[in-house]
Amino acid sequence: MQALRFIGGRLYLDEVPRPIAAGESLIRVTKSGICNTDIEIIRGYAGFAGTIGHEFVGVVEESRNTELVGKRVVGEINAGCGVCTLCRAGDPRHCPDRTVLGIKGRDGAHAEFLRLPEANLVEVPDSVSDEQAVFAEPLAAAYGIAEQVNVLSDTRVAVIGDGKLGILCALSLGLLSNRVTLIGRHASKLNIAERQGIESLLSADAAKMSSAFDVVVEASGSESGFATALDLVRPRGKIVLKSTFQGRPAWEAWRVVVDEITIVGSRCGRFRPAVQLLADGKIDVAPLISDDLPLSRGVEAVAEAQAKGVMKVLLTP
Amino acid sequence: MQALRFIGGRLYLDEVPRPIAAGESLIRVTKSGICNTDIEIIRGYAGFAGTIGHEFVGVVEESRNTELVGKRVVGEINAGCGVCTLCRAGDPRHCPDRTVLGIKGRDGAHAEFLRLPEANLVEVPDSVSDEQAVFAEPLAAAYGIAEQVNVLSDTRVAVIGDGKLGILCALSLGLLSNRVTLIGRHASKLNIAERQGIESLLSADAAKMSSAFDVVVEASGSESGFATALDLVRPRGKIVLKSTFQGRPAWEAWRVVVDEITIVGSRCGRFRPAVQLLADGKIDVAPLISDDLPLSRGVEAVAEAQAKGVMKVLLTP
Repeated sequence: MQALRFIGGRLYLDEVPRPIAAGESLIRVTKSGICNTDIEIIRGYAGFAGTIGHEFVGVVEESRNTELVGKRVVGEINAGCGVCTLCRAGDPRHCPDRTVLGIKGRDGAHAEFLRLPEANLVEVPDSVSDEQAVFAEPLAAAYGIAEQVNVLSDTRVAVIGDGKLGILCALSLGLLSNRVTLIGRHASKLNIAERQGIESLLSADAAKMSSAFDVVVEASGSESGFATALDLVRPRGKIVLKSTFQGRPAWEAWRVVVDEITIVGSRCGRFRPAVQLLADGKIDVAPLISDDLPLSRGVEAVAEAQAKGVMKVLLTP
Repeated sequence: MQALRFIGGRLYLDEVPRPIAAGESLIRVTKSGICNTDIEIIRGYAGFAGTIGHEFVGVVEESRNTELVGKRVVGEINAGCGVCTLCRAGDPRHCPDRTVLGIKGRDGAHAEFLRLPEANLVEVPDSVSDEQAVFAEPLAAAYGIAEQVNVLSDTRVAVIGDGKLGILCALSLGLLSNRVTLIGRHASKLNIAERQGIESLLSADAAKMSSAFDVVVEASGSESGFATALDLVRPRGKIVLKSTFQGRPAWEAWRVVVDEITIVGSRCGRFRPAVQLLADGKIDVAPLISDDLPLSRGVEAVAEAQAKGVMKVLLTP
């Protein structure tokens, strides 16, 4: 089968054997999405070697659970060891021995087939298209913020970063609070959120909102984004770090102490609530799709995904 | 009156007018304590100019509340504007226009007299000596961690830093949890906590405790202390930043995201519970006192407080 591989510092399309289910489920990928983490991986983040990609929707080809075969599914990307305390508590997302689809010790989704444990799979209702379902992973990550931080209808929330993740954070938190502001550098991207009822603000104008927010979500992944978050959050407020930063940014730790700010690292969310949001038509992801290319043009697609102004690029095997 | 002043980058003893109560209370200082923050101030932190010092015990000389006159008191160091939302909610500690005793816009405690609003004063029971009472401020700051982070009897807590603040954090959290470990570089300092029932660990041996703690308190104020905290905290655990860091340390932000760690900045605590701990004999602060010098030798005392192995140095006007 075809797979988009990153090995030895090089990204290339390859012909590789179809994975064997080996106790897990085999899924035929029908659509995958290129994430910023894919791009960070080919820049060296996480030291991964193998098939990249972790956002997907597909059809179950083989499974010990015969009822699943033929079903359309998305899948949680962390696969735990199954025996440690965390896994037994039903949350393998922090299992120390976990593999992660297309990120750590497990071939990923930019391929014709992938395998995942049956427990990771979440069925997709017919009302959700492949183009929507492929957003389940980033939408779960965005909506997952509310698992960690209390967001009520009057919580003043700022989201910094008008990329795909920032917009999904703003849209999904906008379902919980009436006071969400998306902050970014690109009017065209801010407009995507504006059209779904989210207020927006150009980064250049953010200074006037000093200490104005209860919760600030940093989704730009930049050092300056974190500095802005420190400016915008009120004393005793919360900063949610959503982006996997590269390197070791410098930070004004003393401000965190003096203003008694809480910083919450946030990575993954649960898939079922995200799929439900899509099924209920609560979030319109269509404006986030920039292109949909065949998997055979995967290398080109990853290059395109890095171009200025490009949002989500999908791949179809 | 005599006062220990830091002005124009220079620390010196000066003769200055006794403060006028002007609607606040006038307190005759009987004992003050030199804090690491005093030392940071004379290194340029916070840009303060005036009389330094914020840990004290004294006797009320003048007050609109005549019942207070003659009483022995300690005092919360933040004085709010009295009219903003935070002040009206009863918590001036984050009032944007606050002054802070010996730190921001208000002359401090290394002097014969100081003034503070009546609302800041907390009476000291006769059973608590001046030498104990002067620890009310740092003990409040240490015990205040439990206001922000849930510490139960089986919460695994590590405190990094065997200075005065670290030891007070370990001792006070040890009243809530049976599983507190103090980590530091000095066996002699670790022993102070050991003798009050706290486990300890030399920094060099901390690596073997990777991911072993639910809550890690960073009280060393060093960049390496924060890196150690990241190593010791479990996924989804909490790091409490207790020290006012100087400069802009670099941090591995990606680890905070991937392990979904929460970082809690923590500065001040409430005084009444701290005074109660001292009155109940729950914390023995005597082993933390290295010296007690007359205020007239204040400059020398501040130098001594910076010497290797020296813990709390007190001043007596």
